[in-house]
Amino acid sequence: MALIVQKYGGSSVSDIEKIKLVARKVIETKRKGHKLVVVVSAMGKTTDNLISLAKQITSNPPEKELDLLLSTGEIVSVALLCMAIEKYGEQAEGFPGYFAGIKTDSFHTKARIQKIEPTKIIIELEKDKIVVVAGFQGISYENSITTLGRGGSDLTAIALAGALKADICEIYTDVEGIFSADPNRVKNAKLIPVISYEELLEMASTGAKVMQSRAVEFAKKYKIPFIVKSTFKDGEGTMVKEIELKEGAVVSSVSIDENQAKISIFRVPDRPGIAGKIFTALGEAGINVDVIVQNVSRDNYADISFTVNINDMEKAKDIVEKVGEEIGAERIIVDHDICKVSIIGIGMMNHPGVAGKMFSCLAKSGINIEMISTSEIKISCVIRKKDGQIALTQLHKEFIEEMS
Amino acid sequence: MALIVQKYGGSSVSDIEKIKLVARKVIETKRKGHKLVVVVSAMGKTTDNLISLAKQITSNPPEKELDLLLSTGEIVSVALLCMAIEKYGEQAEGFPGYFAGIKTDSFHTKARIQKIEPTKIIIELEKDKIVVVAGFQGISYENSITTLGRGGSDLTAIALAGALKADICEIYTDVEGIFSADPNRVKNAKLIPVISYEELLEMASTGAKVMQSRAVEFAKKYKIPFIVKSTFKDGEGTMVKEIELKEGAVVSSVSIDENQAKISIFRVPDRPGIAGKIFTALGEAGINVDVIVQNVSRDNYADISFTVNINDMEKAKDIVEKVGEEIGAERIIVDHDICKVSIIGIGMMNHPGVAGKMFSCLAKSGINIEMISTSEIKISCVIRKKDGQIALTQLHKEFIEEMS
Repeated sequence: MALIVQKYGGSSVSDIEKIKLVARKVIETKRKGHKLVVVVSAMGKTTDNLISLAKQITSNPPEKELDLLLSTGEIVSVALLCMAIEKYGEQAEGFPGYFAGIKTDSFHTKARIQKIEPTKIIIELEKDKIVVVAGFQGISYENSITTLGRGGSDLTAIALAGALKADICEIYTDVEGIFSADPNRVKNAKLIPVISYEELLEMASTGAKVMQSRAVEFAKKYKIPFIVKSTFKDGEGTMVKEIELKEGAVVSSVSIDENQAKISIFRVPDRPGIAGKIFTALGEAGINVDVIVQNVSRDNYADISFTVNINDMEKAKDIVEKVGEEIGAERIIVDHDICKVSIIGIGMMNHPGVAGKMFSCLAKSGINIEMISTSEIKISCVIRKKDGQIALTQLHKEFIEEMS
Repeated sequence: MALIVQKYGGSSVSDIEKIKLVARKVIETKRKGHKLVVVVSAMGKTTDNLISLAKQITSNPPEKELDLLLSTGEIVSVALLCMAIEKYGEQAEGFPGYFAGIKTDSFHTKARIQKIEPTKIIIELEKDKIVVVAGFQGISYENSITTLGRGGSDLTAIALAGALKADICEIYTDVEGIFSADPNRVKNAKLIPVISYEELLEMASTGAKVMQSRAVEFAKKYKIPFIVKSTFKDGEGTMVKEIELKEGAVVSSVSIDENQAKISIFRVPDRPGIAGKIFTALGEAGINVDVIVQNVSRDNYADISFTVNINDMEKAKDIVEKVGEEIGAERIIVDHDICKVSIIGIGMMNHPGVAGKMFSCLAKSGINIEMISTSEIKISCVIRKKDGQIALTQLHKEFIEEMS
């Protein structure tokens, strides 16, 4: 008998038929003799609809009240799933996040879990009930309802699995697991059976639509393994856990991010503190800067280029133009015809020459590399947007298909 | 400076524009220098929509989970109203029922308030905030969310007013107050400025669409006065409070109930316990019997007639047919072409002859009275349904219009 935590996202409970399906899956697991905690998200578009109601009142809704509002979405799912479980003959106990003992700080809309006190959950599990917990929400020490930010239900599940010392934590979603590349873009994309937390984090940062980073970071910090798998299709899914370096694939996945824009500032005086001035201003505006390249200085002037998410492009441009004027930069150019292709693999750390192989692969396809950024387990290249698909396909062929 | 509790029902917060209107009304009161607690219901049809979701899962949803589900409706209203109040420049603090200290028993979907611990509300009031509380809900001693039944938000407001020793409790609704008759049926219907709890309770029992009885009973028990008035029109509304007998109107209102059916059982053996058998069986099935008449016995047989709500008619008929067979009754007839007209007034207790005047009034209009039922402050007559409107008009003229 194992203690299992399962999490079902919004697309898995988007209507009554799907909630019934989830209830049957849950019961199937229970009847194998396991103890079971189920974390659910709000139904489909509920959260978006609630946000839209709030925005009809005020364009910038106060965060504490927004949390109170949004917390209702998951509670609806909890109540309905409990009803469905009981209809099919098992006992269920539903918990809003604040009753489940999920204590957070007071940073509304993006609260961090401080402590989990799962006593009430344990009591109900011992009564042989299926415990259903509202994901995404907790309670602050000031007794206000908080929410954990987008993807917060994954975090709830992983944190509960850790606190309960669960044997397995399963994150059910609408995809079969984590793939070596987006299957919609690369037809030979393979399901990755095992992946490290670090690789998953890098995938998210390189534009792959996987789990929210906060949940993965939490799992990594507390060494909580979890499985990502499909609600609707059978399969083993992807196990995410700590991986010994020597076990890791050299390259486990290839990704593309087409939501990047490049901003270049020409003829910036090459004095200490100038780059700092630019990036501090961007940071203060909440803009995440991704790849940064500074050309070699000539005549005490340098060119600086960096990429930002395309949604931040206008805001970043305004800031850079303002700072550029102050520091006497010659010219600013914004370019959104770019994309970023990345290869990720924990085994890279043990295998020199991966970068060289990547650059050669792109060169063979006639693709020019404009910017490069690397971490210990990732190499990203900024290239022309029109070259993105071919780069993705060629890199996948070189590093994934020909390696297996 | 007064402490005021205001309650806004579902029709007062049915959309964002109305929520904004309520926020402005609330702020207006606050800025007169008062402390303010606002109780809100779920937006418009929210509760019905949630029930319909539950019924898609199971025709008979488990009550504990149903309460958890329904409680979300009022929380949405609380969060949105707080946002609107803050947008207009005042500070608000929102409370789900379980944080507001409303402790109930565990009779889910119709829980009774056991105790109110308003400490948290008082703390926020002292910070000069407008406190917004979710109506209709509480928390049981087992820490489950409970709901107080239909009309439960009125009860929340009245109970909070009592616990907080509020100076005024205002129940805002879509009508201007309580009228001497339904203004849609009687064009000269008058707003009643002051009415007793007892009269309001009798009005509800005689078919007038006023407040739910549980809230009024609670107010009566703890002597909590309250005012019923319109969200959308200015006016004094109706004050509901304890009234000295000598102050009371002889007849304060006239009402009609067209949702009644009469069941007659002919030639029932006139032995002790026979009537008991019939009405016990109906009671066990949860059917409320209203007017009961038993004819004078002849040859040791009697005829029994009674009225039930038209929704219970089929069920009542089945039960009576079964019991009728056991006890050897001759015949059972169901008649839904009836209605019940009533006059209500606390002053009736001091004025003999009111019944006679009522019967004469109906007789003058050629209306035959089939059944009569009386309480200390009410007289009801069952008549043909086709005579209902004229009876209502004539009784209102005789007892209300010609008296004022």
